[in-house]
Amino acid sequence: MNEYPSILLDSAVQQMASLPGIGRKTALRLVLNLLRRSPEEVDAFAGAMTKLRREVRYCRCCHNLSDAEVCPVCSSRSRDRRVVCVVENVRDVMSVENTGQYNGLYHVLGGVISPMDGIGPRDLEIDSLVQRVEQEEVGEVILALPATMEGDTTNFYIYRRLRDTGVRVSQIARGVAVGNELEYTDEITLGRSIVNRTEFRA
Amino acid sequence: MNEYPSILLDSAVQQMASLPGIGRKTALRLVLNLLRRSPEEVDAFAGAMTKLRREVRYCRCCHNLSDAEVCPVCSSRSRDRRVVCVVENVRDVMSVENTGQYNGLYHVLGGVISPMDGIGPRDLEIDSLVQRVEQEEVGEVILALPATMEGDTTNFYIYRRLRDTGVRVSQIARGVAVGNELEYTDEITLGRSIVNRTEFRA
Repeated sequence: MNEYPSILLDSAVQQMASLPGIGRKTALRLVLNLLRRSPEEVDAFAGAMTKLRREVRYCRCCHNLSDAEVCPVCSSRSRDRRVVCVVENVRDVMSVENTGQYNGLYHVLGGVISPMDGIGPRDLEIDSLVQRVEQEEVGEVILALPATMEGDTTNFYIYRRLRDTGVRVSQIARGVAVGNELEYTDEITLGRSIVNRTEFRA
Repeated sequence: MNEYPSILLDSAVQQMASLPGIGRKTALRLVLNLLRRSPEEVDAFAGAMTKLRREVRYCRCCHNLSDAEVCPVCSSRSRDRRVVCVVENVRDVMSVENTGQYNGLYHVLGGVISPMDGIGPRDLEIDSLVQRVEQEEVGEVILALPATMEGDTTNFYIYRRLRDTGVRVSQIARGVAVGNELEYTDEITLGRSIVNRTEFRA
């Protein structure tokens, strides 16, 4: 006997297990859960995935996921169009949105420069960012890329490309995370947070 | 702005998060992973689920999942047809199969008797088990139900139903799990393992 009593089950489990972080045991549990639903419910589950993949688009301005040609953020009238926050991916847009602290627009790069992975500036939405800054009335570009070597490289590259446009380029603060004890903060973060100290505001 | 920039994304995440143990954050991660695949790959993923749900059948004899009317175990010539192992669900069949210690047939009840959840003997494949024992040449029924109150109740109910057929009814051994220290074994298990001690075989 095969591991599974049914080839249909086997192929469903295999597909489910192709998702990141889902092992064979979890995949089986998830598939058996789907099996307990009505055929219509399973159709709705499967349909949502195929519909998303076939119909979702990327916003013409900021390259975020969108149902329409221009995403809700870019087409909103209440957002500050003079500020553009540069992020690595779609998830980072949601993270910044969730803070409730930002009211400007976004620019999704689709990755960061990483020679190790063969990702160069040409593979990212950097040209379109420069074009946006040149053609639209952007006063400030906030770099909100990951605090990694690749993020730093990309930050520096974008900074150099934007230097001549006269736009203000800032980057999100790095330092001790809120709620953290100093003794558990790594030396590099702590060292930089001393070098980059800010004026105390009571 | 909504939590997600796209209604399509939102509905895909919602469907993914309807699976047990998958939260919104994990669901988003999984859906974004699907989005990075080709449309054909996503179709294959979705198709495997709908095809399973619409085409999988339950074996006429043992009620295990099967592609055909009779499952590979029941139709196998190399299995011992005189022994039937009674299990709660499909996953338990796989667990027993994975031990490599069993060569008989199965009978999948589809649950255990649980008045709390409104599951009575009529909701389970118990009548069909009795019928199988009466009509086929079954010499032994092995009860391999969970070691819970519900499992015990079901064990007892099946035992009573089979008592008059003359079939031998056994149940899988309960005791200290292999590799476990006595001090970490709960009192009930340890107590029963003393009462139900077996002859030492060197």
